[in-house]
Amino acid sequence: MAGGVGSRFWPMSTPECPKQFIDVFGTGRTFLQMTFDRFKGVVAPENVWVVTSAKYFDIVKTQLPEVPVENILLEPCRRNTAPCIAYVSWRIKSKNPNANLVITPSDHLVTDVIEFQRVINSALKFTAETDAIVTLGMHPTRPETGYGYIQADLQEPSLVNKEIFRVDSFREKPDLATATEYVRQNNFFWNSGIFIWSVKTIVNALRVYQPELSSIFENLLPVYGTDKEQAAIDEKFPTCENISIDYAVMEKADEIFVFPADFGWSDVGTWGSLHTIAKTDKDGNNVIGPDISLYETKNCVVHTTEERKVVIQGLDNYIVAEKGNTLLICRLDQEQRIKEFSCN
Amino acid sequence: MAGGVGSRFWPMSTPECPKQFIDVFGTGRTFLQMTFDRFKGVVAPENVWVVTSAKYFDIVKTQLPEVPVENILLEPCRRNTAPCIAYVSWRIKSKNPNANLVITPSDHLVTDVIEFQRVINSALKFTAETDAIVTLGMHPTRPETGYGYIQADLQEPSLVNKEIFRVDSFREKPDLATATEYVRQNNFFWNSGIFIWSVKTIVNALRVYQPELSSIFENLLPVYGTDKEQAAIDEKFPTCENISIDYAVMEKADEIFVFPADFGWSDVGTWGSLHTIAKTDKDGNNVIGPDISLYETKNCVVHTTEERKVVIQGLDNYIVAEKGNTLLICRLDQEQRIKEFSCN
Repeated sequence: MAGGVGSRFWPMSTPECPKQFIDVFGTGRTFLQMTFDRFKGVVAPENVWVVTSAKYFDIVKTQLPEVPVENILLEPCRRNTAPCIAYVSWRIKSKNPNANLVITPSDHLVTDVIEFQRVINSALKFTAETDAIVTLGMHPTRPETGYGYIQADLQEPSLVNKEIFRVDSFREKPDLATATEYVRQNNFFWNSGIFIWSVKTIVNALRVYQPELSSIFENLLPVYGTDKEQAAIDEKFPTCENISIDYAVMEKADEIFVFPADFGWSDVGTWGSLHTIAKTDKDGNNVIGPDISLYETKNCVVHTTEERKVVIQGLDNYIVAEKGNTLLICRLDQEQRIKEFSCN
Repeated sequence: MAGGVGSRFWPMSTPECPKQFIDVFGTGRTFLQMTFDRFKGVVAPENVWVVTSAKYFDIVKTQLPEVPVENILLEPCRRNTAPCIAYVSWRIKSKNPNANLVITPSDHLVTDVIEFQRVINSALKFTAETDAIVTLGMHPTRPETGYGYIQADLQEPSLVNKEIFRVDSFREKPDLATATEYVRQNNFFWNSGIFIWSVKTIVNALRVYQPELSSIFENLLPVYGTDKEQAAIDEKFPTCENISIDYAVMEKADEIFVFPADFGWSDVGTWGSLHTIAKTDKDGNNVIGPDISLYETKNCVVHTTEERKVVIQGLDNYIVAEKGNTLLICRLDQEQRIKEFSCN
């Protein structure tokens, strides 16, 4: 899934080039490319599918030359994750009804790719043998209020994989007290938004819980892979309900499992989370840019993307981000207002 | 005089385009152009001379199309004000030995141009009738430690102009206690660096007090106005002593006068002085740029020169200045370190 707009990462992330297409860490690889790299050896490039907005087609093609262009599915408008997943599921079903899928955001960070691959392979084996819906739950390391949580029934591991448990409930982003309580208990996990299931399972689940949505993509079976596909999608996709896969399926279905895991995951949803994750200097500054000089500056995130000279003196706990024609200077503790800033 | 490098105004002012060539106030006119404008009706454009660095020739020609190009004198290197003034004085003498001169920096601000012209005309009348050296002294409005001061003998006005007084002494930039004492007394004035004298007077003064310097420009009399002038200047100018006109003449000569005046003058030498002078919003911000949004920001100077979107949240007492490929963020009270920042 590569259709997000990454509005909390403005101005690095813009509607023209959102977060998943950006090399936020200065490593030479964008989030999308890192996501692709993470599946090397697990999924062959010709089996990688990217669902994105029509306007990002060229970016995806350029950033992932290994992926066949016909595997880049283009949404004419944004309709949240359920229509996106329904589209790619029926599209893959039309090619291979026995396919086994991993659904993943393309703008997250995973630091322990070896463990990630072990978990993914283990989960794929599980969904190949069962009709389970599996979510990856991340062991919480702090009472994060920016994530949803999954409550697991740790008393009841699945029969075929002892690392996988039934889900008791999905919980929305909690307040701090609730999050602290979740972390204190050991059966709550961050909802990573990574799902594993067979095409059969997800198609059946959508048919049961989202019959309208399902009929839209079911009816398009004759055009998938033909030169009529895009026109049909452009016509029908906008009629889909704007709904997340969590609401559409997860919170309704029975056979939902969680695979608690720990592979150094972050959604890097905000500048603050980047500051938490990324390498900082001795003064707590995370600095990415070709020519940045800091004086009496600490706990700042400083990102520039151009060949630009930046001198900063006397800042504590600020974001300084510059991209193209835009400069943001903002206290880190006020970053929830970035969306507001970017719109004015 | 338009050869300065304006290092305290970095990054707006750069060696490639220093302060005098910049439209700091966003009015559409640079300091150099405002200086030219200030003399309209007093000095005909063909009698305006600009002494600048060779590398700024194109800028001056572009910014002052009214000034004949042969009136743009080019220094091959920087040698402070005395060689600059000596050069232009002999050069003008070669054309008109009876000329009456105003010497002025080109990077200062004057807000009351009517009063400025009255003072200049009055001073020019005085120097046309006498062999006096006249400096303009500004009534101090605060104990500024960034300016030199002129101590006047207010008991002894000149015979022909009751607004003009003999100078008792020139004082270097004082400390705050001394500056406060100067302001408390009423006979100390800021040294504006604006001088009025006849060509005869300055040439004679230079001959007496700076014989070496004088002989250099005296010897070039045969080449002034010829196609050999620049080559001769390029050869001889670097041999001049690096010395200010204050040291070279003012502090040595006898017939020195000061014209105390009050026409809204500032040398706008620093970001802080710009902040003091320029229009601020209700939060004390001085903002120049096409697209700047401020949130919870006060007492800041924000200057951008490009078509750039800038969002600033939560800054108090900072300079944010952006030009070309350079961004500076610096506490206003640390601006004396800008020269250090710009060199690293």
